[in-house]
Amino acid sequence: MEDSRKKSVTSPENSWGEECGLVGIYAPENSDDIARFSYLSLYSLQHRGQESAGICVTNGGEFDRKRGMGLVTNVFAEEDLADMEGNIGLGHVRYSTAGSSKMVNVQPFITSSIKGNLALAHNGNLTNHRELRSNLEERGAIFHSGLDTEVIAHLIARSLQDDIEEAFVESLQGIRGAFSLLAMTDDSLLAARDPRGFRPLVLGQKDDFYIVASETCAFDILEAEPIREIEPGEVITINEEGIKSRYYCENKKNKFCVFEFIYFARPDSVIKDQNVRQARKKMGENLAREAEVDGDVVVPVPSSGISAALGFAGEAGIPYKQGILQNKYVGRTFIQPRQKIRNLKVRIKLNPIKKIIKDKRVILVDDSIVRGTTSQQIVNMLREAEAEEIHMAVSSPPVSHSCYYGLDTSRRQQLIASSKNPQEICQHIGADSLTYLSREGLLASLDSDDGGFCTACFDGNYPLPPPEEVKNI
Amino acid sequence: MEDSRKKSVTSPENSWGEECGLVGIYAPENSDDIARFSYLSLYSLQHRGQESAGICVTNGGEFDRKRGMGLVTNVFAEEDLADMEGNIGLGHVRYSTAGSSKMVNVQPFITSSIKGNLALAHNGNLTNHRELRSNLEERGAIFHSGLDTEVIAHLIARSLQDDIEEAFVESLQGIRGAFSLLAMTDDSLLAARDPRGFRPLVLGQKDDFYIVASETCAFDILEAEPIREIEPGEVITINEEGIKSRYYCENKKNKFCVFEFIYFARPDSVIKDQNVRQARKKMGENLAREAEVDGDVVVPVPSSGISAALGFAGEAGIPYKQGILQNKYVGRTFIQPRQKIRNLKVRIKLNPIKKIIKDKRVILVDDSIVRGTTSQQIVNMLREAEAEEIHMAVSSPPVSHSCYYGLDTSRRQQLIASSKNPQEICQHIGADSLTYLSREGLLASLDSDDGGFCTACFDGNYPLPPPEEVKNI
Amino acid sequence: MEDSRKKSVTSPENSWGEECGLVGIYAPENSDDIARFSYLSLYSLQHRGQESAGICVTNGGEFDRKRGMGLVTNVFAEEDLADMEGNIGLGHVRYSTAGSSKMVNVQPFITSSIKGNLALAHNGNLTNHRELRSNLEERGAIFHSGLDTEVIAHLIARSLQDDIEEAFVESLQGIRGAFSLLAMTDDSLLAARDPRGFRPLVLGQKDDFYIVASETCAFDILEAEPIREIEPGEVITINEEGIKSRYYCENKKNKFCVFEFIYFARPDSVIKDQNVRQARKKMGENLAREAEVDGDVVVPVPSSGISAALGFAGEAGIPYKQGILQNKYVGRTFIQPRQKIRNLKVRIKLNPIKKIIKDKRVILVDDSIVRGTTSQQIVNMLREAEAEEIHMAVSSPPVSHSCYYGLDTSRRQQLIASSKNPQEICQHIGADSLTYLSREGLLASLDSDDGGFCTACFDGNYPLPPPEEVKNI
Amino acid sequence: MEDSRKKSVTSPENSWGEECGLVGIYAPENSDDIARFSYLSLYSLQHRGQESAGICVTNGGEFDRKRGMGLVTNVFAEEDLADMEGNIGLGHVRYSTAGSSKMVNVQPFITSSIKGNLALAHNGNLTNHRELRSNLEERGAIFHSGLDTEVIAHLIARSLQDDIEEAFVESLQGIRGAFSLLAMTDDSLLAARDPRGFRPLVLGQKDDFYIVASETCAFDILEAEPIREIEPGEVITINEEGIKSRYYCENKKNKFCVFEFIYFARPDSVIKDQNVRQARKKMGENLAREAEVDGDVVVPVPSSGISAALGFAGEAGIPYKQGILQNKYVGRTFIQPRQKIRNLKVRIKLNPIKKIIKDKRVILVDDSIVRGTTSQQIVNMLREAEAEEIHMAVSSPPVSHSCYYGLDTSRRQQLIASSKNPQEICQHIGADSLTYLSREGLLASLDSDDGGFCTACFDGNYPLPPPEEVKNI
Repeated sequence: MEDSRKKSVTSPENSWGEECGLVGIYAPENSDDIARFSYLSLYSLQHRGQESAGICVTNGGEFDRKRGMGLVTNVFAEEDLADMEGNIGLGHVRYSTAGSSKMVNVQPFITSSIKGNLALAHNGNLTNHRELRSNLEERGAIFHSGLDTEVIAHLIARSLQDDIEEAFVESLQGIRGAFSLLAMTDDSLLAARDPRGFRPLVLGQKDDFYIVASETCAFDILEAEPIREIEPGEVITINEEGIKSRYYCENKKNKFCVFEFIYFARPDSVIKDQNVRQARKKMGENLAREAEVDGDVVVPVPSSGISAALGFAGEAGIPYKQGILQNKYVGRTFIQPRQKIRNLKVRIKLNPIKKIIKDKRVILVDDSIVRGTTSQQIVNMLREAEAEEIHMAVSSPPVSHSCYYGLDTSRRQQLIASSKNPQEICQHIGADSLTYLSREGLLASLDSDDGGFCTACFDGNYPLPPPEEVKNI
Repeated sequence: MEDSRKKSVTSPENSWGEECGLVGIYAPENSDDIARFSYLSLYSLQHRGQESAGICVTNGGEFDRKRGMGLVTNVFAEEDLADMEGNIGLGHVRYSTAGSSKMVNVQPFITSSIKGNLALAHNGNLTNHRELRSNLEERGAIFHSGLDTEVIAHLIARSLQDDIEEAFVESLQGIRGAFSLLAMTDDSLLAARDPRGFRPLVLGQKDDFYIVASETCAFDILEAEPIREIEPGEVITINEEGIKSRYYCENKKNKFCVFEFIYFARPDSVIKDQNVRQARKKMGENLAREAEVDGDVVVPVPSSGISAALGFAGEAGIPYKQGILQNKYVGRTFIQPRQKIRNLKVRIKLNPIKKIIKDKRVILVDDSIVRGTTSQQIVNMLREAEAEEIHMAVSSPPVSHSCYYGLDTSRRQQLIASSKNPQEICQHIGADSLTYLSREGLLASLDSDDGGFCTACFDGNYPLPPPEEVKNI
Repeated sequence: MEDSRKKSVTSPENSWGEECGLVGIYAPENSDDIARFSYLSLYSLQHRGQESAGICVTNGGEFDRKRGMGLVTNVFAEEDLADMEGNIGLGHVRYSTAGSSKMVNVQPFITSSIKGNLALAHNGNLTNHRELRSNLEERGAIFHSGLDTEVIAHLIARSLQDDIEEAFVESLQGIRGAFSLLAMTDDSLLAARDPRGFRPLVLGQKDDFYIVASETCAFDILEAEPIREIEPGEVITINEEGIKSRYYCENKKNKFCVFEFIYFARPDSVIKDQNVRQARKKMGENLAREAEVDGDVVVPVPSSGISAALGFAGEAGIPYKQGILQNKYVGRTFIQPRQKIRNLKVRIKLNPIKKIIKDKRVILVDDSIVRGTTSQQIVNMLREAEAEEIHMAVSSPPVSHSCYYGLDTSRRQQLIASSKNPQEICQHIGADSLTYLSREGLLASLDSDDGGFCTACFDGNYPLPPPEEVKNI
Repeated sequence: MEDSRKKSVTSPENSWGEECGLVGIYAPENSDDIARFSYLSLYSLQHRGQESAGICVTNGGEFDRKRGMGLVTNVFAEEDLADMEGNIGLGHVRYSTAGSSKMVNVQPFITSSIKGNLALAHNGNLTNHRELRSNLEERGAIFHSGLDTEVIAHLIARSLQDDIEEAFVESLQGIRGAFSLLAMTDDSLLAARDPRGFRPLVLGQKDDFYIVASETCAFDILEAEPIREIEPGEVITINEEGIKSRYYCENKKNKFCVFEFIYFARPDSVIKDQNVRQARKKMGENLAREAEVDGDVVVPVPSSGISAALGFAGEAGIPYKQGILQNKYVGRTFIQPRQKIRNLKVRIKLNPIKKIIKDKRVILVDDSIVRGTTSQQIVNMLREAEAEEIHMAVSSPPVSHSCYYGLDTSRRQQLIASSKNPQEICQHIGADSLTYLSREGLLASLDSDDGGFCTACFDGNYPLPPPEEVKNI
């Protein structure tokens, strides 16, 4: 049933489908480097969001924020950071679909209320965003954005707990869904993870600075040491009294997003004590064991398929060759000629190496197929490079269900595997064969048992109910 | 007593001391020209605020806003406006002191709430801003800016009136101070003026478009016709049912800001049926009658003193000469040399014409003296141009009291007339004599009786109590 | 006869019709302030060219240049100037017609040759540009721009004189037309004026700095003192040996451009010992004497007609009123609505004050009529403001002939007075009467006899033959 | 002996050490796509120069050029290219050292002369630049830049050949060194290669468009087909009469830069009928055969060492692992923190994967060592990742001699192999062993005999005498 209300300025739909990178830093004293460390961390988390970036610092007085659209290295100039002093810092990078690419949606999100100043940075997706927003609106709340963080800010401001930290914890008890959340108050850095632990969040240390970030690669760039992951359902407070941990809920269960391992996280990050690239290689090895396909050469789709292809090639004993070159200098805008050039969009980013491809039976490895469009173009491109056969091998199962926990896997009808079986998909993309890694093969690649991961996008087995409005569609 | 709370991110102090220009346009149907007309109107209201500009339009769906720092002609590009279609438009230009020059404070201010979408544009200053904000905070409101409009948006959202128009009227009953206020809802344009009518607001018409603007010069550029001024305490609703007027309070009394006539309004605007430049000329004539000073030449401080100087010269029978040239190309930034050049800051904008000044008894006419710094530099500059005598004549009384109704007349201790009498001021600026126009002479220049104007900055006779926090200092 | 050659990349036609402002500064030692002084001087010469600006400095080593399109205050940032150190500086502002608004044409023009490094800045127009260029091309020269300065640079490089200063003088003997020219070599500042002295050039001093500039207003801003004008046919060398003057030609005759007095120069500049504004006022007085017209009010076209209108009003005993307001915030780009607004282009810049205009016999004073378009729009605008009668009075004679000496008076057929007599022009612009100042009245306003001025645009009496290519058309 | 002349504004030293990418396109008729095709080609040649980019087109009339600093996708906007119509186009990307990063040095270089309009784009380095420039200066030439192309433009303009094409050929006979050169005249596209063929240049075709480009990857993006390489000493003319080829010299000999194969060219390009990546892989295989080193894992320095590492691993039978991750989002500017972070500059671009590195004997493969600084930092980084042993293997011989033919291999004293033997270098970078590929092993990797390549940077065996000024130092 369609929602009959007028479309709002700050429509919550806009907040869907984002993946983000977070960093929070706490220093015992004012430091020149709070903003610069935030910057370096965001830089190393750039793969989690290239749409916009923001940093906010405080020394207990005014909150000083700089934010903008684009890459970290474009948003911040030396003079911006030189002016930002404080002992607490919060940083955020964000990917978003076109519709909501507005400055008003760029985090960190700052407000002031009876509880004091508050900055929030969020990675994930609240499944009860719409209900909460609707309830808040009925109670007189006004909204400026479509962000989950704005709902959380309202909950904190309206909490009957006087203390902002207690109010923060109370707000966590009211929200549902996937969230790794950082908050900066006038004197503390707070970090929380949802009770399923869908999205990553890690605690680290560099000298007497504490750092909380989405991935360990943000520590590496600072020469900081990882301490441990924030646990599902845990909230951590860092302030002049040190670090304090507590659990804000009882029913907690590890359901980490398996797609972080498959695609999203940076290969050099360590999650659940496992190096991401190693996990991807194992997926490739398992895929080789499952696949009944022979070929002359294993070629990865760069750069997402490289680790799995290396694993596949090693296991299958077929040579690994980088038969597709990736252009290093892809910019944001690209100017099209009037004359039609086949597959130009793919060709701009990727170029096949004919010597490697021609007259070969190519095993083309990628991490996943979402809509099928890109795979189709790459297969097409290899055909033009005169491959004899093209066998596509995918190091994850078919993505057949939408994600409601923070990944942009699109509406279900756009997922090619929601309406087509592998054989039909194979035909659609024009390959000679298509093999997916089984769910079992995927989980066997990870140093953790089945129950610890969310695999809803493959099997529709949602650890938490999807948003109400989705269920009714 | 000092407020002991920590300084807020979105401190209300920041909202003081602004003057602004407003325009709202309602067309019966979607029009390409809504944004362009808003743009042209703002352009003609540029003198009311050069710090930032914003335009917001709607056709009943999403609110489309473009805003930025700087002049109207710099903020908007053709392609920005080409994309903005609607049947209602709201525009705002703003002057602000350095501290609050942040994007988050650039109007129109947009929010969404249970009442629907809302855009607000405001000229004036709420005297109970701090109490309202404090009360709202206690009731769980969160704030993003230091703007009066944000307080009003909260009042509207929290009103028990279901209808947004009724809620708007209710909010007007809760705010105190000076305000000319425009609001855009999903289907209506609302315009209101405070019960004293401190700041101007006029209704006009161009074909079947209705326009509400700060001054009539915004109609002239569009070839629109003025209909009438919005009355003190009146609120007007324009939508598909036409124009509706009502009064939201009983105790209304005309206390129009006399400084709009003296300095702020554009000379070609018509306020209270009187052309502003004519009024200024009369002030000059009355000043000539009051002044007991003889001279060889009447020289205006360009451009603020021109009209009064023309009146003075005509009345006194002394030749009017433009003895000071104004540089047309003054930019925002100005680079200083290391070597000291006397009076460079004034010299960049103004240049004396020695042939006119040298060996002459100069009557130097300006509209007002606020801090005295500029007058001092100009007198100094004329001395260097070898004027024989310099008699300063000011076409308004000494500004001795702060304004709490929307003009940036600075803190009281910065007003030179708050601590010095005219003789001391004369000495301070280095003139041979100094004459102010009397309060009576000023009011006699205006086609309206004494009671109709706010003259608090001259006599401390405040039509409304100043903000609580000011009284306690 | 049409030129049959292919149109060149760097077509000489592009260099026509420019007016420019120049400054050159020589300090005995390296100074931080060379670039900053150049900047301030250019700022005060901004009225001579708003299209582009450039500054070049040297300390005997590399020439350091910064240039760009736009106003002086936009082209240069503090950090640009902070980096530019030297003991010699050259600055240039330029107006140009749309076609040649290219970076490659922005001066100062820098080259290096066997004679050393050379920077040139030029105001004027060479009448033998095309012949020289053609001859140079036949001798193997290559061209990057359409600038007169490029031709001069070639002449200097090819001179048989070893010394760059001597080569400069030799080049002056080869060029014809109007030029005020500044040159910077590795160790000297050179300044020259053509044998007729068409365009202004003045020498001044600030402490031990020598300054050469287009107008004295460039000295005022620096608190420098004027020494004297560079004479027609004179060349001056300033270097560590001091100032040296010589004359490079015999047949010199003062033919200063009368339009500099009428319109172009800044009112506070002093030329030929006469203040420009005073001269304009006298033109207005003489115009009042010649005009047989009665009116209620004298209204200037701002700002070009103000001085003449003041003179006219004083002489005629008719009140002077600024019945047309000029918008202070005119930007470069202006966005048009789709709906037609009459006279929008004029209305954007000017707004009539109805109270002053309505039912009045208006004497509208301007300095000149070139194409007639603007006058027509202003008259039209006053008609709409319900003027009873409009009598246009122009403080110069009809412009009936093109200028070949550096002013952009357009092609002859575009000059309304080339094909229409005053009565027809009056009809065309829609005025009730039209009076031009006579040539005699004009010259009587100037403290100099007839022979000292070029009045070719009024009488076709060209002091130098026009360019060959023009004569043949 | 040092040159005693003053340093020139447009010093030829600046032009050293550049590598560039070229494209020229000829269409039989005016086409919308000339500029867009140039753009796409430059985009695919971006690896040859990221400092600046320029495109120039003509349809026989004016030459229309757009150029700027930065990447191709940043320099050109859709509207720029939409305005550029013609039937001939020329494009250039350029890398340069900091000193000469000036707009005046951005190609294509355009001039006009008696021979007509001319645009030039150049890749290489003239060894007699200084003599030619000096001779030209003595004959009156003026210079705007330090570019080789400016010297060539002068030679063409001064040629006694009337025809521009003949003049172009004559100029080729006067220049020495390395050059692949494209020229656009009013009606023709000219392409030439120096008599040794140091730098690449290929001819291709798309429908009825002819394209000349630095590498075949520029054809791939356009779906154009390669025809053949331009030969050493050949000049090709493309115009309405079709393609014409001739040789402008007799003593020609193939001495193609072997570094194009080792590092510079794009892996998917085909040069001398050999795919570049295949050649690199062979280098790795030969290196494995020559190296007497054992290890647990072969790790490439990304991305320069990947192909060679794959070859090495395959040949040695040691697993290939991407143990170092490359950051995809490296921007131009990077902000440093105040606190020291070890190896930050390398860490920003590269991150070791500890799981792969720790406790392993790592064979680290790169294509070359120039100064040694980066290698040292990477080795250091692997030490911190706890590698057990680090054996560096380099797929080319020690770079011990400067290049005078267009590669930026720095001054000889900066080349670590000019003063240290491999053992000393090994110590310097901190590796446990260091193996270079032998010159024989290198040449055996290429499908061409020894004599066909320039290997001067390895053996000092210069095919052409170095510049005079270098020999004398």
